Amino acid sequence: MGKSIKKLKILIIHGPNLHLLGTREPGIYGKTTIAQINASLKKIAHDRNVTVCIKQSNHEGEIIDLITKTNFNGLLINPAAYTHTSVAIRDAIAASAKPAIEVHLSNIHARETFRHTSLISPVVRGTIMGFGPASYTVGLKTLLDLLST
Amino acid sequence: MGKSIKKLKILIIHGPNLHLLGTREPGIYGKTTIAQINASLKKIAHDRNVTVCIKQSNHEGEIIDLITKTNFNGLLINPAAYTHTSVAIRDAIAASAKPAIEVHLSNIHARETFRHTSLISPVVRGTIMGFGPASYTVGLKTLLDLLST
Amino acid sequence: MGKSIKKLKILIIHGPNLHLLGTREPGIYGKTTIAQINASLKKIAHDRNVTVCIKQSNHEGEIIDLITKTNFNGLLINPAAYTHTSVAIRDAIAASAKPAIEVHLSNIHARETFRHTSLISPVVRGTIMGFGPASYTVGLKTLLDLLST
Amino acid sequence: MGKSIKKLKILIIHGPNLHLLGTREPGIYGKTTIAQINASLKKIAHDRNVTVCIKQSNHEGEIIDLITKTNFNGLLINPAAYTHTSVAIRDAIAASAKPAIEVHLSNIHARETFRHTSLISPVVRGTIMGFGPASYTVGLKTLLDLLST
Amino acid sequence: MGKSIKKLKILIIHGPNLHLLGTREPGIYGKTTIAQINASLKKIAHDRNVTVCIKQSNHEGEIIDLITKTNFNGLLINPAAYTHTSVAIRDAIAASAKPAIEVHLSNIHARETFRHTSLISPVVRGTIMGFGPASYTVGLKTLLDLLST
Amino acid sequence: MGKSIKKLKILIIHGPNLHLLGTREPGIYGKTTIAQINASLKKIAHDRNVTVCIKQSNHEGEIIDLITKTNFNGLLINPAAYTHTSVAIRDAIAASAKPAIEVHLSNIHARETFRHTSLISPVVRGTIMGFGPASYTVGLKTLLDLLST
Amino acid sequence: MGKSIKKLKILIIHGPNLHLLGTREPGIYGKTTIAQINASLKKIAHDRNVTVCIKQSNHEGEIIDLITKTNFNGLLINPAAYTHTSVAIRDAIAASAKPAIEVHLSNIHARETFRHTSLISPVVRGTIMGFGPASYTVGLKTLLDLLST
Amino acid sequence: MGKSIKKLKILIIHGPNLHLLGTREPGIYGKTTIAQINASLKKIAHDRNVTVCIKQSNHEGEIIDLITKTNFNGLLINPAAYTHTSVAIRDAIAASAKPAIEVHLSNIHARETFRHTSLISPVVRGTIMGFGPASYTVGLKTLLDLLST
Amino acid sequence: MGKSIKKLKILIIHGPNLHLLGTREPGIYGKTTIAQINASLKKIAHDRNVTVCIKQSNHEGEIIDLITKTNFNGLLINPAAYTHTSVAIRDAIAASAKPAIEVHLSNIHARETFRHTSLISPVVRGTIMGFGPASYTVGLKTLLDLLST
Amino acid sequence: MGKSIKKLKILIIHGPNLHLLGTREPGIYGKTTIAQINASLKKIAHDRNVTVCIKQSNHEGEIIDLITKTNFNGLLINPAAYTHTSVAIRDAIAASAKPAIEVHLSNIHARETFRHTSLISPVVRGTIMGFGPASYTVGLKTLLDLLST
Amino acid sequence: MGKSIKKLKILIIHGPNLHLLGTREPGIYGKTTIAQINASLKKIAHDRNVTVCIKQSNHEGEIIDLITKTNFNGLLINPAAYTHTSVAIRDAIAASAKPAIEVHLSNIHARETFRHTSLISPVVRGTIMGFGPASYTVGLKTLLDLLST
Amino acid sequence: MGKSIKKLKILIIHGPNLHLLGTREPGIYGKTTIAQINASLKKIAHDRNVTVCIKQSNHEGEIIDLITKTNFNGLLINPAAYTHTSVAIRDAIAASAKPAIEVHLSNIHARETFRHTSLISPVVRGTIMGFGPASYTVGLKTLLDLLST
Repeated sequence: MGKSIKKLKILIIHGPNLHLLGTREPGIYGKTTIAQINASLKKIAHDRNVTVCIKQSNHEGEIIDLITKTNFNGLLINPAAYTHTSVAIRDAIAASAKPAIEVHLSNIHARETFRHTSLISPVVRGTIMGFGPASYTVGLKTLLDLLST
Repeated sequence: MGKSIKKLKILIIHGPNLHLLGTREPGIYGKTTIAQINASLKKIAHDRNVTVCIKQSNHEGEIIDLITKTNFNGLLINPAAYTHTSVAIRDAIAASAKPAIEVHLSNIHARETFRHTSLISPVVRGTIMGFGPASYTVGLKTLLDLLST
Repeated sequence: MGKSIKKLKILIIHGPNLHLLGTREPGIYGKTTIAQINASLKKIAHDRNVTVCIKQSNHEGEIIDLITKTNFNGLLINPAAYTHTSVAIRDAIAASAKPAIEVHLSNIHARETFRHTSLISPVVRGTIMGFGPASYTVGLKTLLDLLST
Repeated sequence: MGKSIKKLKILIIHGPNLHLLGTREPGIYGKTTIAQINASLKKIAHDRNVTVCIKQSNHEGEIIDLITKTNFNGLLINPAAYTHTSVAIRDAIAASAKPAIEVHLSNIHARETFRHTSLISPVVRGTIMGFGPASYTVGLKTLLDLLST
Repeated sequence: MGKSIKKLKILIIHGPNLHLLGTREPGIYGKTTIAQINASLKKIAHDRNVTVCIKQSNHEGEIIDLITKTNFNGLLINPAAYTHTSVAIRDAIAASAKPAIEVHLSNIHARETFRHTSLISPVVRGTIMGFGPASYTVGLKTLLDLLST
Repeated sequence: MGKSIKKLKILIIHGPNLHLLGTREPGIYGKTTIAQINASLKKIAHDRNVTVCIKQSNHEGEIIDLITKTNFNGLLINPAAYTHTSVAIRDAIAASAKPAIEVHLSNIHARETFRHTSLISPVVRGTIMGFGPASYTVGLKTLLDLLST
Repeated sequence: MGKSIKKLKILIIHGPNLHLLGTREPGIYGKTTIAQINASLKKIAHDRNVTVCIKQSNHEGEIIDLITKTNFNGLLINPAAYTHTSVAIRDAIAASAKPAIEVHLSNIHARETFRHTSLISPVVRGTIMGFGPASYTVGLKTLLDLLST
Repeated sequence: MGKSIKKLKILIIHGPNLHLLGTREPGIYGKTTIAQINASLKKIAHDRNVTVCIKQSNHEGEIIDLITKTNFNGLLINPAAYTHTSVAIRDAIAASAKPAIEVHLSNIHARETFRHTSLISPVVRGTIMGFGPASYTVGLKTLLDLLST
Repeated sequence: MGKSIKKLKILIIHGPNLHLLGTREPGIYGKTTIAQINASLKKIAHDRNVTVCIKQSNHEGEIIDLITKTNFNGLLINPAAYTHTSVAIRDAIAASAKPAIEVHLSNIHARETFRHTSLISPVVRGTIMGFGPASYTVGLKTLLDLLST
Repeated sequence: MGKSIKKLKILIIHGPNLHLLGTREPGIYGKTTIAQINASLKKIAHDRNVTVCIKQSNHEGEIIDLITKTNFNGLLINPAAYTHTSVAIRDAIAASAKPAIEVHLSNIHARETFRHTSLISPVVRGTIMGFGPASYTVGLKTLLDLLST
Repeated sequence: MGKSIKKLKILIIHGPNLHLLGTREPGIYGKTTIAQINASLKKIAHDRNVTVCIKQSNHEGEIIDLITKTNFNGLLINPAAYTHTSVAIRDAIAASAKPAIEVHLSNIHARETFRHTSLISPVVRGTIMGFGPASYTVGLKTLLDLLST
Repeated sequence: MGKSIKKLKILIIHGPNLHLLGTREPGIYGKTTIAQINASLKKIAHDRNVTVCIKQSNHEGEIIDLITKTNFNGLLINPAAYTHTSVAIRDAIAASAKPAIEVHLSNIHARETFRHTSLISPVVRGTIMGFGPASYTVGLKTLLDLLST
């Protein structure tokens, strides 16, 4: 049984408050629920024959635990509010030494000034933002392309 | 059974380190314990015929869980140290779309410079600070008045 | 005739432009007039058996005169625009050495950046903001409670 | 007697120290006196059949009183030093909800750094600066054009 | 044939994106087209017996060429976006040593923070902003008055 | 002949110095040439049955001309160095009122501090950065998806 | 009767809140009253055969009136809180073109940061601070020496 | 049984991501594992006859719980990423009123700018940084010396 | 015939507004014309047996074209106003990977604050400024010395 | 022989470059030499029956040696350029615990921005600046008055 | 005679004002004199069989001379006030290329803001601060451990 | 014997740590020693028939003494670390009123941020940096050219 048989495993993390997606403030964040986003991601995973492990957490420490104590090949993360405040998640991603992609539903540069700075961006391969739920699907496809080259 | 029979439910959150109130550093924070404050709040609730759910937590994620996963009609929160660092709690309060009041025991503008900025203030209805334990009781009464109009 | 017979005297100051309240820009500041706010305050004073002296002034110097040349036991002040620019009113309040409470109709942290800084906050007992006319009534009651303990 | 018979009334305010114009420091501010500027303004008013009410004041509060307690259709103001320090005059102009034009004799961007910021500019229709006494006459004509369209 | 026979020549420059005026985003910039503004300016020129040379350019270098390689007696310029970024246009105006007036359609102090700073203002005689198309016509008249004194 | 017969036209702009791609500093920017990137983009266009118009320019003004004088349905732009300095290109994109996507080969947040700010981001739908040549192909596909919904 | 018979006239201005001197917060500002300081100043005036005109005002505008509408040969001013906020008093002193000395009872550099900046210092001959009531007497003597040379 | 029989108890906290020590990025952080560091610390504790309680946590709230709900005589803490962001841990240490020492494996001043600020330093007795695993052992010995004097 | 026969080619670029040298504002920039400077540079080139290609341009894009599309062995550039604003010229010089020297006629640190920062300096070998026309001749000689070692 | 017989000793320090006074740049610093200033100071000392020890030094370390290794009762210091850069002289004055007065010939607030900050002011009793050589004589007299009370 | 016979030589430098230790301001800096600290350091040196060369200097230049002209194997330095101002001592330590440790008696982060920045920290192996005289002894022991590994 | 017989005297100052040149950190600063640089400078002096006085000093005060107490016609100075911190050396150069040239071995703008500011540049004729030892020789030749015109 060769290594090639083992499926790639992608860790997907939704940061704080994203469990509310689609059910509250649809005017701002759209009507797509996190369940619908997850379904799209799972479909891509199935089509590309990879495994995804999807988690939502409001806890900074839990997100660090996920990144540093889980086995995975690539990381797709929407750090949400922790984008701007968490040096610890940044350090966790850097320590994981795995390809990571940061996604945001909205264009963070078009919001309040304190959201213009990302502590996470310098430690990921790339960032995709502004496309709503499509930020996730484009992000996952791009991550899988990165891993296959 | 009409809607009028259902009591209003108020979520009251004490942020990090507030469980120590009255037992440590009484010279600074006074001798009133958190239990005594909670008793005063419960008495007001009883008198005004509303339900209160009071929680203390040192965990940012737990506070977000409380705000976004609990059912309540109004929020009274002393974010303590998270006032100055938590974009995530701010986002949670904004997402809840419920009337919220921020309280502080001391006058945060009379302390260190890094305590002068509140990330929470822009998303609450109002702020009451500087009155010691009375900040809570005045805050709860004001919140109930807001909800009854 | 003992000292206990003498009523407490509360000085209440409305800062610049507040005489316009309720008559202009009702969409922003509400329809309550300053006369109506003053009536509420006088009613509380009557109920609590204290005297109130209520003044509105657009003049920084006049406000300083009021604070430093009037006899009073407690101060309730809405410094309005002077909140952000007047070191002199700050010094006057500090020099008066009387309990003072700062109130604001709106939540100043949710407005322009230059309104986020209060020169007054560090010299008052506490601050109440964001509750519209209720900021005044809650403020007066809280001040009277402070003075009676 | 129709509305058309009532003349437009323009309030013209000269801010602090402008009463000295032409009599002191002619090397910097030119030799035109404030009386001569006022004469030019009155002549324009006469030609255009409008009324002007011209005031000079060194008092911030007095300027606010003028703006908020006087009846007028349009405001022409040279806030002078208060341009850079008065949030209260800014609030008064905003509250008046009348068309206002800010004028300056000199080009404030070519002077000390603390004169580069105008607290007044964001609440007026437009600003005219750098043309000496002509800033006023151009300003008044432009204001009358604005009011007639 | 004396010098008095020679007409004054005014260079009028519309900066980047101003060719779109009136055809796009009329909600923000109004419905007046650049052609209509130019017609008004030419009429004033005809009435005052001066020549105008009107150019629109999106190229910073082209604007510098116009200012430094063209013969003219006075400059009317709306630097648009280059107001905030072009040290080179500033240097060109200063080097031309001709009277110049800066105009803006909108009040730049009421827009984004990065539009509050003008690199151009310190090198012109005066600035007129906020009056829409009238900023140009008032500007041209004022420039002609300056040149005739 | 209906509207559905008309192909969508996508304008693709490579900013300053990008013509050098693949031929200089391959250690940093990779060995893929701009011709190879363009070939990939054309292939996607062919597959999706849209037209692409691809331009490289070192001239800020030329880029503004392209955006404001060309007819197109969507914009894909790598503003390169102008990302950080051009208010004029920002204004052009905003004025075009067409869906636009900003792409970067490298992660600009992992480079010098002056490259962390994007003047362009607030006026585009979304941003994709850090994936090398794939930033372009992912960007084009995402733009086409946006246009088809 | 020659010019030499005319006594020099010195204008002495006490800024906001200084009327309280000696009666409040003696722990900070000392027990010397403003009346005692004034007596010392009058004695020096008598000994040096000059006239002094001493005023205290809490009103910025009144202080400007004093400086610009009074006849005097030299100015001694303690601007107090207006030191840090009044561009208008600065302009008045500069316009007066008379020798002026700024005095402060306390060392303003040893107090809060916002008191470290003096808008007044750049327009006076010199500054004397930190010596309590002696700041005034040393200041008056130095001013008289300046005027006699 | 006297008080002298009771052993001193030292709480030792490893902050976020430190569980990875020695197993990831050995090039940067060295090959010593956290288990080896803990063994060294336990040996010192045994030699000095004190008890140590060693915890690693990625959770800010958990660290606060440890500090405020555990019984101990002295604290040795490597706050890692929370050094720069946690006002709440700072408040917990201050509230504990126990001698505390902050240690860092690397010299934080030789890393990124955002790591130069420590929110923790002002509330501890002292700081030891830059010596790799020896920062801990030196720190523990110094803490024990402090406690024995 | 060998490489030694091929002359070195030096690209010399005069940035914006430098074509005016010697003809305008001689009081500031001296009376030497750009033609005279070019003659001196050509003489040095002749004496040292190298070829020079000298260009003046007011266009940022044109300067980038010159640097990235021309064949040369060394670059001598006076970026003038673009020194402070052009990330794109900086990137072009870095991409050229040729020895470059930056020259300035005046001492840019003795002028306005916004001229103190050079975006170009970090990507050139060295900088020579303040010597008027001699900055060019010293610069060219130094560049030739660099190329011959 | 009692203590009262012992004369007070005043240490007077002239900071860097002050030995040049009166001989260079008389247009700026006046024609009074340091020798003449010293003579005036010695005369005052003689009249008041105190001893003065006057030193000029360009060496920061030497000035610290003087302050910390010399025996004196009061210090008069013109720190010149070290005013703005020497934390070490500040610490020396604070450690000396003797009354000190800081003097400056010119008004440092009317010069370059980097001269507006004084590291010395917070540790002296008072500051006298702007009076040329008289700053020293006024300073010495004031210091002697301070010591005699 | 082998290399092992040669003792290690440690240079220990006390920066400005530290000669006063224990004799002045004992309330702040404690009663331990510099002589007592030196004795402790010599004892450690004797026990560990190394040589120490201990110097105190108030002169920045002298400290640089010591570091760059003395032969030593390791450096222990308390830069005192020069910590915050001396780029030159920083450069000297970096040039020495010897292991260095920075010590401070007090916790510099708990003092004035200008003491929070250390120019020295980035060029030393590690820093120990806040332990009073023990900072030195812990520092020396740690340095010797570093040198023996 | 006329003035023409007297040779020009050039003072050449090497700032702190430059005595180490060529012997330490050759990877960074090159292998040329200060003796070799001095030999080159002396040869130029001999060829141009001028006298040079070359000094190296680590002492700020000594450098000021050299500049203000030595007789010379022109100054060539590499202020090294004092470039960024010494207002006193700046004042000494300004006071000397002699032509001065500042040289640096490396390009200071390509190093740490705190090295980007030069306090010296505004008071010298010109600056030459980045050419290693050639910065000195080019500097001396340029200074001699300046003196001969």
